[in-house]
Amino acid sequence: MAALNTLTATELAQRLDSGGATAEAIVRAHLDRIDQRDADVLAWSHLAREAALETARMLDRGPRKGLLHGIPMGVKDIIDSFDQPTTYGSPIYRTHQPLADAATVALAREAGAILLGKTVTTEFANRHPGPTKNPHNPGHTPGGSSSGSAAAVADFQSVLGTGTQTGGSVIRPAAFCGVVGYKPSYGHFAPAGMKANTEWLDTIGAYARSVEDIALFRAALMALPFTPIAKIDRPPRIAVAFTHHRHELSPEGTQAVNDAAAAFAKAGAQVSEIELPAPVRDMTEGQKTLSAFDGPRAHADEARRFPGLLSESLKKDKLEAGSKIDYETWVAARKLGETGRAAVDSLFSDIDVILTAPAKGEAPPGLERTGDATFNLLWTYLWMPCVTLPLTMGPTGLPVGIQLVGRQHEDAGLLDIAAWARSVLS
Amino acid sequence: MAALNTLTATELAQRLDSGGATAEAIVRAHLDRIDQRDADVLAWSHLAREAALETARMLDRGPRKGLLHGIPMGVKDIIDSFDQPTTYGSPIYRTHQPLADAATVALAREAGAILLGKTVTTEFANRHPGPTKNPHNPGHTPGGSSSGSAAAVADFQSVLGTGTQTGGSVIRPAAFCGVVGYKPSYGHFAPAGMKANTEWLDTIGAYARSVEDIALFRAALMALPFTPIAKIDRPPRIAVAFTHHRHELSPEGTQAVNDAAAAFAKAGAQVSEIELPAPVRDMTEGQKTLSAFDGPRAHADEARRFPGLLSESLKKDKLEAGSKIDYETWVAARKLGETGRAAVDSLFSDIDVILTAPAKGEAPPGLERTGDATFNLLWTYLWMPCVTLPLTMGPTGLPVGIQLVGRQHEDAGLLDIAAWARSVLS
Repeated sequence: MAALNTLTATELAQRLDSGGATAEAIVRAHLDRIDQRDADVLAWSHLAREAALETARMLDRGPRKGLLHGIPMGVKDIIDSFDQPTTYGSPIYRTHQPLADAATVALAREAGAILLGKTVTTEFANRHPGPTKNPHNPGHTPGGSSSGSAAAVADFQSVLGTGTQTGGSVIRPAAFCGVVGYKPSYGHFAPAGMKANTEWLDTIGAYARSVEDIALFRAALMALPFTPIAKIDRPPRIAVAFTHHRHELSPEGTQAVNDAAAAFAKAGAQVSEIELPAPVRDMTEGQKTLSAFDGPRAHADEARRFPGLLSESLKKDKLEAGSKIDYETWVAARKLGETGRAAVDSLFSDIDVILTAPAKGEAPPGLERTGDATFNLLWTYLWMPCVTLPLTMGPTGLPVGIQLVGRQHEDAGLLDIAAWARSVLS
Repeated sequence: MAALNTLTATELAQRLDSGGATAEAIVRAHLDRIDQRDADVLAWSHLAREAALETARMLDRGPRKGLLHGIPMGVKDIIDSFDQPTTYGSPIYRTHQPLADAATVALAREAGAILLGKTVTTEFANRHPGPTKNPHNPGHTPGGSSSGSAAAVADFQSVLGTGTQTGGSVIRPAAFCGVVGYKPSYGHFAPAGMKANTEWLDTIGAYARSVEDIALFRAALMALPFTPIAKIDRPPRIAVAFTHHRHELSPEGTQAVNDAAAAFAKAGAQVSEIELPAPVRDMTEGQKTLSAFDGPRAHADEARRFPGLLSESLKKDKLEAGSKIDYETWVAARKLGETGRAAVDSLFSDIDVILTAPAKGEAPPGLERTGDATFNLLWTYLWMPCVTLPLTMGPTGLPVGIQLVGRQHEDAGLLDIAAWARSVLS
């Protein structure tokens, strides 16, 4: 019988319902895995062993609390929790204990989830890495900024995890670690209690090891009724978009997209390659403008009081770069968002989903960088829902995935297509 | 010679530059006024007397620090400050001491502003009032949710103040208290460190007693170079919009708009009345949908752990109402924002500014309600910059103002027009 820490949330819910497992046993299985493995992965910035066990025992004594009853999860340490320290990946906040839960944390708890702890984030969810290693190879980055959540779920140390994406911080780590990552349409998970970076881009997202789990997690985090994944009526119309950055893709990254496209076509999907409409091409630069502009503003307090505790990359890429952007350039970037979103939305009269790469390829070696977000910036700024699906292993033995991108607000439909895609690819 | 607490920031800056005043003397003048008056107004939730004096003395010893050097201000208590408690107007946060400054607080300090203290907010910047009274008549509301900042600036207890607007929480209190209120284009002042209500609407704004001060404050809070108010080339093209709520306006509210329109026309402006384009009519309902939907999400932690400490109005209008809104209704309200903003933007090929009412009329009697936001919801959701200008006194002897609304992102142009309008009306 499979160890409890290898099951999905959907499978665990069945076990709990049938009396085949207790929440306490589920938590213990995950804590055991953490004891066995986390010295090599370093996914957690804080572990709440006793609190998690106590919550589990309390849940075991009561009726089913909600969609996530008894399911262990990790919370990216850029998101506040009232009973666990929240460092934002910065020494400035080493001793920070928020008074309140972030919206997504409270909603997960209300649905019965058990917080195993806080997962490592890069500094303020920017580029300066935390200690987490890729669970498939400790010499490689797990990606970032949601490094710990992606690694913990990939390594069977947690069932679910939350992340945040301003550039590529949910989708890319999912690809590097080989798990399902989901960045919703902008603003779908309430951001209250998340440490802000860039108002127009920051998006809370989710990790799991199955698309069905993402659908469950999504309903809980949005406080909406749960609609299980539906079988789609007909194979989808798929647009392959290598984007104008196609020459930057690695061979294995290109091959993953092509292999998936071929498999989808074989399964009956209409597959065609597209060029993205003109304004969308500029949105990568627009994302960078918005992100940099907010740097010296969102982090004004840290820059003013603790400049010596900020990383050089944050100071250079955000504080310095952002202070050089003038008002007109910032407004142009904001208007570009509106133009680009309208242009890309019109594509969806002829297509159902976009297939693209979630990253350039395998996780690069070294822990001093978290990889490149080129294949993410665009979609983040288009506010479109994105899903990473693991596909294969690359030449170095590390995961390579694909990314599916849906129409804004049609997140449920995207998850249905993603479940179909996964069944085709498996 | 006028008491220092009656001068504007622009005037005080000149005094400081010429050696005609010290920051310490300016702070003392305001603390004296507070001692004399605040027992009747109750604008402050926290006063930082000693810290303000100490900061003033430190500033007096050094070179000019920035745009707000030596200028006293109040910060709405929905916005975090690292050295002053931040209650969000709720007993849940009675002992809350944030570890960091919000972006706007840090940027104001970096520009040399002196924080006198935190100003009263309604509960979580919603409807349940704090203790603040209208400085013109203690039997009347100062408006809300930015009650304390509007009252403190109106009562010469502070030079500047910050507020936040999700419905009408900056513009309406300015009208009720008789000060200049400014709600920027959505997202212009970085929201980091503000307690969130509704992601699509929450906008940090500003109070002062002159339009020139608003321009100065704006530059500091956006960390942009200061461009003083410019004399406009020609009188503006003004569209009078009573909106489809015109029948809800009081006689004095209607008359203020008509009197201002007549004065502007006499001064050479092109003035014409307009009906707002179709989608905009539905945006009042759209604002309510968004605002309610986020209620049980943004406040999930408080609802889960401290339901007994929430007001009945918050529970009913936000938590209960919001939990009944389905996903499709919420998405429709979000899409309405895009449609409405595009429709209203196209008006600006023929006009420069919209003239409308900032509130239904004078501040209503009683402190148990903060007045009606009908004439604000629309503009908040259109993300357009808005300015309240005081105009006259109504039948009860309370202020009645007008509201000028500009094109999104053209905030500087709106302030130029507002300065022209004030000179015409004075």
